[in-house]
Amino acid sequence: MANDGMLVAAMAPLLSSDIGILILLAIPLLSLASSLKLWDTLSLLLEFTTTSVPTIDVKLAAAESDDDGVTSKPDTSKKVQLRDPERKGFVQCYDPSTLQHLGEVPAMTKEDVDAICAKAAKAQKSWSRTTYAQRRLVMRTIQKYIVNHVEDICRVCTRDSGKPKVDALLGEVMTTCEKIRTINANGEEWLRRQYRPSGPMMMHKTAYVEYVPFGVLGVIAPWNYPFHNMLNHIISGLFSGNAVVSKCSEHTSWSSDYFGRIVKAALVECGHDPDIVQTVTGFGEAGSALVSSSYVDKIIFTGSPGVGRLVMEGCSKNLKPVILELGGKDPMVFCDDVKIKDVVPWAMRGCFQNCGQNCCGVERLFVYESIVTEFIDTVLPRVKGLRQGVPLKTCGSDGDVDCGAMVMDAQMDHIQALVDDAVSKGATLHCGGKRNDKLDGQFYVPTLLSGVTADMKISTEEVFGPIMCIVTVPNDDDEKCVEMINACSFGLGSSVYSASQKRGMKIGKQLRSGMFTVNDFGVNYLIQSLPFGGVGESGFDRFAGPEGLRACCLERSIVEDRIPGVRTTIPSPIDYPIDIRKGLPFGTSLVNLFYNESLLGKIKAIFGLIKYG
Amino acid sequence: MANDGMLVAAMAPLLSSDIGILILLAIPLLSLASSLKLWDTLSLLLEFTTTSVPTIDVKLAAAESDDDGVTSKPDTSKKVQLRDPERKGFVQCYDPSTLQHLGEVPAMTKEDVDAICAKAAKAQKSWSRTTYAQRRLVMRTIQKYIVNHVEDICRVCTRDSGKPKVDALLGEVMTTCEKIRTINANGEEWLRRQYRPSGPMMMHKTAYVEYVPFGVLGVIAPWNYPFHNMLNHIISGLFSGNAVVSKCSEHTSWSSDYFGRIVKAALVECGHDPDIVQTVTGFGEAGSALVSSSYVDKIIFTGSPGVGRLVMEGCSKNLKPVILELGGKDPMVFCDDVKIKDVVPWAMRGCFQNCGQNCCGVERLFVYESIVTEFIDTVLPRVKGLRQGVPLKTCGSDGDVDCGAMVMDAQMDHIQALVDDAVSKGATLHCGGKRNDKLDGQFYVPTLLSGVTADMKISTEEVFGPIMCIVTVPNDDDEKCVEMINACSFGLGSSVYSASQKRGMKIGKQLRSGMFTVNDFGVNYLIQSLPFGGVGESGFDRFAGPEGLRACCLERSIVEDRIPGVRTTIPSPIDYPIDIRKGLPFGTSLVNLFYNESLLGKIKAIFGLIKYG
Repeated sequence: MANDGMLVAAMAPLLSSDIGILILLAIPLLSLASSLKLWDTLSLLLEFTTTSVPTIDVKLAAAESDDDGVTSKPDTSKKVQLRDPERKGFVQCYDPSTLQHLGEVPAMTKEDVDAICAKAAKAQKSWSRTTYAQRRLVMRTIQKYIVNHVEDICRVCTRDSGKPKVDALLGEVMTTCEKIRTINANGEEWLRRQYRPSGPMMMHKTAYVEYVPFGVLGVIAPWNYPFHNMLNHIISGLFSGNAVVSKCSEHTSWSSDYFGRIVKAALVECGHDPDIVQTVTGFGEAGSALVSSSYVDKIIFTGSPGVGRLVMEGCSKNLKPVILELGGKDPMVFCDDVKIKDVVPWAMRGCFQNCGQNCCGVERLFVYESIVTEFIDTVLPRVKGLRQGVPLKTCGSDGDVDCGAMVMDAQMDHIQALVDDAVSKGATLHCGGKRNDKLDGQFYVPTLLSGVTADMKISTEEVFGPIMCIVTVPNDDDEKCVEMINACSFGLGSSVYSASQKRGMKIGKQLRSGMFTVNDFGVNYLIQSLPFGGVGESGFDRFAGPEGLRACCLERSIVEDRIPGVRTTIPSPIDYPIDIRKGLPFGTSLVNLFYNESLLGKIKAIFGLIKYG
Repeated sequence: MANDGMLVAAMAPLLSSDIGILILLAIPLLSLASSLKLWDTLSLLLEFTTTSVPTIDVKLAAAESDDDGVTSKPDTSKKVQLRDPERKGFVQCYDPSTLQHLGEVPAMTKEDVDAICAKAAKAQKSWSRTTYAQRRLVMRTIQKYIVNHVEDICRVCTRDSGKPKVDALLGEVMTTCEKIRTINANGEEWLRRQYRPSGPMMMHKTAYVEYVPFGVLGVIAPWNYPFHNMLNHIISGLFSGNAVVSKCSEHTSWSSDYFGRIVKAALVECGHDPDIVQTVTGFGEAGSALVSSSYVDKIIFTGSPGVGRLVMEGCSKNLKPVILELGGKDPMVFCDDVKIKDVVPWAMRGCFQNCGQNCCGVERLFVYESIVTEFIDTVLPRVKGLRQGVPLKTCGSDGDVDCGAMVMDAQMDHIQALVDDAVSKGATLHCGGKRNDKLDGQFYVPTLLSGVTADMKISTEEVFGPIMCIVTVPNDDDEKCVEMINACSFGLGSSVYSASQKRGMKIGKQLRSGMFTVNDFGVNYLIQSLPFGGVGESGFDRFAGPEGLRACCLERSIVEDRIPGVRTTIPSPIDYPIDIRKGLPFGTSLVNLFYNESLLGKIKAIFGLIKYG
């Protein structure tokens, strides 16, 4: 509102040319500049246009590089297991789309993890003293590398997780770049000292909150977005002055080496100790070690509710704060007034992006009764048309693939059980509903289920796979729709499509979820100034946004004397030894002076203070 | 800064009287008003001056009223135990200063607690729809009652906990009034929708965060401030639209009935369902039931680290968010440059207020070596002079008492063990150091210990009693002082006294604690716009301030189209089925357009988007 007024003021010279007006104009313009944080913006702009960003070089290993990196022909006769009895102390890595062996990484023990965390804690001391400009330069160095190596990063993600490169580009590269941009543009402001009103009784005091780095953040990341899940917390952790130790999933630990090398190279190039970022590889033991390490000050966990419970229980032993970002069963709603051809692409992306392996993936598609038949007719050929295969060809060009492999083989058994249960209880299976036997890798055929009801397990348990689950909203009833959605114990994201934005908002406001958008999908995550997180089985606390950045910090309340030299003393009636005949009426007068709403009460209180003070 | 510019603008008519200037002036003045939130302030002022606050009447039971409420002569031959084997299902209540039996309250079972929580959850539905003005009126009704019944509230606190009335007045009444004032003045603004920058890629979107009531807050409160600990969370919980179920400590459950009646009377008088506040009485079973109740959405626990671990573990089973406010071993530092007579009253209040039963009490007094002898000589007679006794006379007037009783009998054994351990390891006991045998009630003699060192248990374990523990800072060394303070695993509050505010701040900034003040004590809590909480063994997350109020809410990220009717569609190269020869370069161009810092890179990206889009 202030800014609107100011803009009108800026147009006023057209009306008059008095010199006094010009002077007057300068004041609101300066105010405008200040209120728009123009100085901050200008100094940031200056920093961004004058500082040259270093270029880093990260050598690619054979399997990471483009030229048919995996030398051996896939030997599918013997499936690679993460745990090889002959290679104790290591995690075996393979490409889920080809089952090719990629290599091995250490399965770290408690001692390994503690040693790594100690190194991180030591390096954090000097890192915490760096300026925001120094941290921004590190971020920009990483970003420059990413922008110039989109294809490399996508390839490594694809090889480790079996996803198509376009999924990697959208979900891993773009999100990470936007995170860096947002943090660089806003992070310093978000961590700036915040002044607080000190109230009438404490007028002589200055009160403020400061954000101090916690120390070492322990991150336990899932396997669905190996690059982004790792970089995400490194960016916010480093920017806020912390060291970050990331435990990557045993299912996608092969790629973590390359991603870790990128960050370390950027740190070294900018003159910092690369020990402030550390990668932990291994199984549950390594994760537990991170949770219990005395060097780790806070845990950020992303994963399933089941493991989330264990992590929180582990944190309880050390009273360690924890952020839990667990799963979701995000609803997408199509009201009766939508244009079906407009919303079908959203349903497709919501359900099949990254082969459904998204915490914010659409797991429940609520379609209003009057349009459900037409919707199914329209969407079915699209689902059937999804092409599945190996995204990276071992020789030559990439495959034209819409739906890649599933990272976890066991996940497919879980999906199969959910689909079978739904069908046995009356859901209609239009296509898919089984593993893809035509391919050697871990593939599940894109599936369309309709007539899904509340009694089916698939209505309440997370699927995390390429299944479009259509739930019919009876009688096109908004209220019923809200009730059906809220019956679920998850509450991460949600989206509602309607010709009327107002109607969409009205429905959305009643949904119990941490995030909501109307007539769009996934956009909450592309706006990195918004906090990300859920409620109920979806966990608690937030990453991203100022909330997420401040969550990497110890919030400190500080009080100082406003006028140096003017000190507070304890009023004599309440100094020891206390005379109850004075102390009590004196204190009561104080209470009346500040909190009695009647003027008479306040005046009486002043007399009381004089009498007993 | 904006505001300063505006004030200058307001003075400009003195220079000129052109009509154009007057018009121009109106604009900055309106802007000034807006930026100062003058409208909010005016409308609040209007509300506060025009709405008449209801007066409520809360009948006092015999033992609560002034007239020698406890009829029976104390029968000290048989000490009242909280658990009476003949009265299963009840908690026996007694006055710790006289050991008089006060009555009994139900020891609730899991079923009782669940039923209560269900009632609260039901009532919350309509409460969540009340306006802030309605909520403020409830707060003001409570405040009016408090201000007019200071003595009653202090008396009931004193009878239940054995503290002197002045301690109740300062620690219970005043803090509660300031909490209400702060919430009424700022709460609505703190819970207002917050807009967030949506970034260049999402410019067509409006992004904001909303604060939605969680539902039912479960509060587990300690016994040291029975009135404030209960009202504290009721105020923030109700104001933010929640129901609040408070489990009071079994050691001070007698008074919870009266305090609950006050809040319920205010709710009824203002036309609301009193079921939105509920009190749970009982032992550990009742607390566990609250933690595990499916009706409770979040737990706010204040208590010991030991019980805090159990509560967090309990919450982990249901993935319930929890705020842990645990103990402290707050340091107070006296640098060599302080005037001893000025700081002695602060040491006395810091250590002996509420008989040391404060989470923010001074548990470690760091006195610089060059002044420690003089300091001990000055403070010793003050400590010896503290009068101990029964604060409420059963007949007639109150006793002149500085140090009251200890709420928990067992606590005194713990304190004795800590003092004995310190003395055995070389600490000097100047006075006190034992139970007060001259009195029938639970009293511990105010104690002065000096020469306390890091190897003594009293350096690391919470005391929660009337002990002044002096630690000498060798060589008046600031750095050493910081190191000694930070060696402790607690980190709640801290205060540093120095003739130089700058020096005090420099020391304070290095202390690992959630709160800090220079040349003052306890003031962080009297500024209720500051968040309250600690780090390490002192727990995590915050109450009070905007942080505390928002912690009562589900933080929701919402994204809407900025221009209604202008909808987002999925660009065809990344819509299914995806042509990898178009999708990948299209996505890469998008990344380059937004995140490539070089102009050439951006220009190339635009051509790429045209070519592949």
